[in-house]
Amino acid sequence: MHVTLKHAQQAIDAARKKAEELDLKMCIAVVDSGGNLKAFERMDDAWVGSIDIAFKKAKTACFFGMATGELGKLSQPGEPLYGIEVSNDGLVTFPGGVPIVDDEGYLVGAVGASGSTVDNDHKVAEAAVKVLGVTELPEHPWRT
Amino acid sequence: MHVTLKHAQQAIDAARKKAEELDLKMCIAVVDSGGNLKAFERMDDAWVGSIDIAFKKAKTACFFGMATGELGKLSQPGEPLYGIEVSNDGLVTFPGGVPIVDDEGYLVGAVGASGSTVDNDHKVAEAAVKVLGVTELPEHPWRT
Amino acid sequence: MHVTLKHAQQAIDAARKKAEELDLKMCIAVVDSGGNLKAFERMDDAWVGSIDIAFKKAKTACFFGMATGELGKLSQPGEPLYGIEVSNDGLVTFPGGVPIVDDEGYLVGAVGASGSTVDNDHKVAEAAVKVLGVTELPEHPWRT
Amino acid sequence: MHVTLKHAQQAIDAARKKAEELDLKMCIAVVDSGGNLKAFERMDDAWVGSIDIAFKKAKTACFFGMATGELGKLSQPGEPLYGIEVSNDGLVTFPGGVPIVDDEGYLVGAVGASGSTVDNDHKVAEAAVKVLGVTELPEHPWRT
Repeated sequence: MHVTLKHAQQAIDAARKKAEELDLKMCIAVVDSGGNLKAFERMDDAWVGSIDIAFKKAKTACFFGMATGELGKLSQPGEPLYGIEVSNDGLVTFPGGVPIVDDEGYLVGAVGASGSTVDNDHKVAEAAVKVLGVTELPEHPWRT
Repeated sequence: MHVTLKHAQQAIDAARKKAEELDLKMCIAVVDSGGNLKAFERMDDAWVGSIDIAFKKAKTACFFGMATGELGKLSQPGEPLYGIEVSNDGLVTFPGGVPIVDDEGYLVGAVGASGSTVDNDHKVAEAAVKVLGVTELPEHPWRT
Repeated sequence: MHVTLKHAQQAIDAARKKAEELDLKMCIAVVDSGGNLKAFERMDDAWVGSIDIAFKKAKTACFFGMATGELGKLSQPGEPLYGIEVSNDGLVTFPGGVPIVDDEGYLVGAVGASGSTVDNDHKVAEAAVKVLGVTELPEHPWRT
Repeated sequence: MHVTLKHAQQAIDAARKKAEELDLKMCIAVVDSGGNLKAFERMDDAWVGSIDIAFKKAKTACFFGMATGELGKLSQPGEPLYGIEVSNDGLVTFPGGVPIVDDEGYLVGAVGASGSTVDNDHKVAEAAVKVLGVTELPEHPWRT
């Protein structure tokens, strides 16, 4: 199961609205359950370097079915997944990537946001996912 | 000078509308004048393999200030630019990428469409650029 | 808006002069506002390994509109952007990359220098940018 | 033996002068005898896509000690080196890359030019090499 374009557009609209509310310039990426790009927007004046980061946050959140900040805790020096960010052609392991789960508990994609502090990035990504009404995530394993 | 998000959204909306009119499933990418992604959409049921092709068509049209099909004529076996597609981390040299030029003659970005025949891809990309009202292209060199 | 070749040449000349003054052997790269290479020089006897670092410093400073050393503080283990260097086909997050801002406050490119200590690299990059007379940087967001 | 920065600068100046004379917008790259970038310039309004092509032409001319157009004849469909362009992280096998040979017959580097027709590109690269006074090339093997 994959996020539809309609849902991806709603997610990006919600992310952009939240970014404008917080006076931020964001890149927002939505990937499907295969980690492949579904929709993307770069707001005017957003960092060019955030394009890849927004996409990789979404990909990372999708690939492991968890918010990127969670993976970041596990990949610090001395922690179990230290160095994981060089796998998969590059992961991003700081906050701003959030999985999208449908109302049957399927992981259908993920959203990644980049352009400000990691706390703001996470808020924007969360706003994008929340508009789809699927904030309650079941236990792993995600069904895809 | 770079294409704005508002213009990129208008271009993608026009491309999607044209694709629906022709009953096609498309990936549509817009890049700025540096070849960096500005906006992207993958319609439901579009080929996953078209994501990269749509982006690379837009990048190619931007990088050389011409429709990708024009470059394709020059890169056939025996023609002057044979093999050019392996440069720049991969170019796409068949139709479906069209440059965006503003009303002062500046190259501000490009659109790439992929998902059907190359003729249909070109029609969709052209529809995206035309909605911005910048179909009259000046002679090379493009100002960027 | 992109840095012109004339300005890029002035920046490189100033960087080379500063390097000679400090008795250093440097690679110096200038990129435009899309992060694409505008001009480059490798002084005789400079490290071959500095070619890519100089370019990636310039790209990094451009992509995030800040000196690379600033990004480096944020990407240490335990800090918010830990691991960011694997994004964007490789960033360089230690000093030696400085953005170029024009007198209207537009980010028009960046300079990267590599070949000595990071302090010396930063001095050389700074000398390159200062000759353009655009050392007063406005608050984010940079306009590009 | 490697081309010096002084010679690389002279080569680029000569290339730019020839380009201006022919009213062209060029990217010009000089590599040393290891194929590593020594100096580079992108003239204003030159194609962004020519950055990589100019560099790869110089690299190709250096790696095989011959003008890129010569290699292009050998890599057409049915010819002995068909497909060689995908090796070495990408070669460019059409005209515009010319080796630099010093007066003792050493291959010390190469020049690549991109931005116009392949004939014009070759003229510009040739003008860059000729200013160094080393147009008489000895038989292979080049000494490096």
